[in-house]
Amino acid sequence: MSQDARFLQAAIEQAQQSLEAGKRHTGTPGVPIGAALAVEDALRAVGHNQRIQKGDPILHAEMDCLSRAGRLSAADYARSTLYTTLWPCKMCAGAAALYGIRRVVCADPGSDLAGSELWRSTDAFLAENQIEMVLLADRSMQQTFRQFVRDYPDLWNEDVGA
Amino acid sequence: MSQDARFLQAAIEQAQQSLEAGKRHTGTPGVPIGAALAVEDALRAVGHNQRIQKGDPILHAEMDCLSRAGRLSAADYARSTLYTTLWPCKMCAGAAALYGIRRVVCADPGSDLAGSELWRSTDAFLAENQIEMVLLADRSMQQTFRQFVRDYPDLWNEDVGA
Repeated sequence: MSQDARFLQAAIEQAQQSLEAGKRHTGTPGVPIGAALAVEDALRAVGHNQRIQKGDPILHAEMDCLSRAGRLSAADYARSTLYTTLWPCKMCAGAAALYGIRRVVCADPGSDLAGSELWRSTDAFLAENQIEMVLLADRSMQQTFRQFVRDYPDLWNEDVGA
Repeated sequence: MSQDARFLQAAIEQAQQSLEAGKRHTGTPGVPIGAALAVEDALRAVGHNQRIQKGDPILHAEMDCLSRAGRLSAADYARSTLYTTLWPCKMCAGAAALYGIRRVVCADPGSDLAGSELWRSTDAFLAENQIEMVLLADRSMQQTFRQFVRDYPDLWNEDVGA
């Protein structure tokens, strides 16, 4: 398994944990989106969406992960890759752009989801900020996520401001 | 005092509190940037930068404020104004765009700060996302912030990924 596949797997495990943690704490599944941050070949942090678990709208998976990674130098961010189970939204792509994260590996382009033109970061924004997107499609994760969207459309809409 | 000036004042008070809270907890002043969120004419939440206090890189003032505001409906975000003492960075503007906040009032355009072209949200991004920017310049807040940047250039650079 490549390093990218291995770290993306850590993000996928976070998405699964989010589903279960939400159920355990509130009876409602947590939004199943996970993330991981690696500084070169070292895994620095993992995280997942915390909307249900913590009632926190800013804790998308990528943001939870960057929060858990703590204060890093610009040099470390520049050597980092952000792994995420779903294409980053405008907030999460903005965070990557702010900190100079130049590479994002994701399991699901999410472009077929209803309303994706509203929440997804655009190619133009990513290119302007020199963020390379790498798609390592994971069919099983995509199916899990789409099942969640079908079962809990209101939660998913809320998570992307729709 | 207009409603905008009153809510912006709440954000300015948060910036001052951040300075002092940082000193109290860690001996280092907190980054003096504050924010407030109003849903129409009701103040919903305030917040401030928490880099020093919580060691959290995602808690810019606007993000801390959105976190404290908790889960809001898209309809509420659409009726909201975000108040901030400094022009929003790419992450914070991205969060406003994600949730459909259409109006940001700020005390300091920050365009004269070194490196501002790297961290500031662009006019193009704001326009694409239909975010109206209102500048209510506050000279005293601008001076407080510039004194912080002069005294703690490394902290400020870290806060914007430089």
